[in-house]
Amino acid sequence: MSVNNSEALEDCVDEPGERSERLVASIEQELSALFRRSRSASLRLARRVHPEMDAAGYALISQIGLGTGAGVRASDVAQVLGLDKSTVSRGITQLENLGLIERIGDPDDGRARLLRLTTVGAERYDAMRAQRQTEFRAILATWSPTDLSDLGRLLARLNADLG
Amino acid sequence: MSVNNSEALEDCVDEPGERSERLVASIEQELSALFRRSRSASLRLARRVHPEMDAAGYALISQIGLGTGAGVRASDVAQVLGLDKSTVSRGITQLENLGLIERIGDPDDGRARLLRLTTVGAERYDAMRAQRQTEFRAILATWSPTDLSDLGRLLARLNADLG
Repeated sequence: MSVNNSEALEDCVDEPGERSERLVASIEQELSALFRRSRSASLRLARRVHPEMDAAGYALISQIGLGTGAGVRASDVAQVLGLDKSTVSRGITQLENLGLIERIGDPDDGRARLLRLTTVGAERYDAMRAQRQTEFRAILATWSPTDLSDLGRLLARLNADLG
Repeated sequence: MSVNNSEALEDCVDEPGERSERLVASIEQELSALFRRSRSASLRLARRVHPEMDAAGYALISQIGLGTGAGVRASDVAQVLGLDKSTVSRGITQLENLGLIERIGDPDDGRARLLRLTTVGAERYDAMRAQRQTEFRAILATWSPTDLSDLGRLLARLNADLG
């Protein structure tokens, strides 16, 4: 039987600073797990919108779907997602070929083109979002109001502090 | 001066179920903000590893960097990231051209190739990770042990419930 000596040692010399260090390390691990979970959920959610869309397409369509319907610039999508223009360009062509997004003229700039969801794209994207929201709410329905309130407050603080 | 009537109305008819619904909605918003923040941080972190790497390359190198040094299969990387093989294939070629990753023979399958970081890739990736960890720890150093402990516990429960 193996004994975790380093952990046993830590328990012996535990000080407030060391406890915080371990708590922060555990938050880092949980956030990494949450981001991994979000990435693998992206493929599942993408497939709901279209069987030929992957996680990269999902990130793109989510960003375009946030728009008001008046259209968004490809360069803005690239900037928000932190992607090279060539990567975004390939993804846009793919979503266009699947009939999920379309290019329209930019009323503010005759030479520019904006991206927006097609009617079919918007229907499928909205259906996926509604289903995702229902599932998420069902999972948190078992939580106490105190835990919900604490998680919301602490996530808000985390976002503010990271900003 | 405009008055938010719908919010005022909600306050009048507030019931425990409605309070939970609003708390869940606020958690959804905070998680969305956190994921957006993580995506835009990806580009910044990618640039630290290599000025020509974008967020897509960052996701790839992070997955390859998780390996033990013995190498990982491109198909496993694609599966974890929820990406099509063609998307991953393009990204791998890019990272190879930047000198950050290399292909090696798979000892278990003579025909297959595995991916691993080059010496330079590993050095830059490790330096970026160490810097990211230092920054994250500095941010959370101002939190009370109670808040740290609550956030860790609630994120762990969220991960478990989403699993």
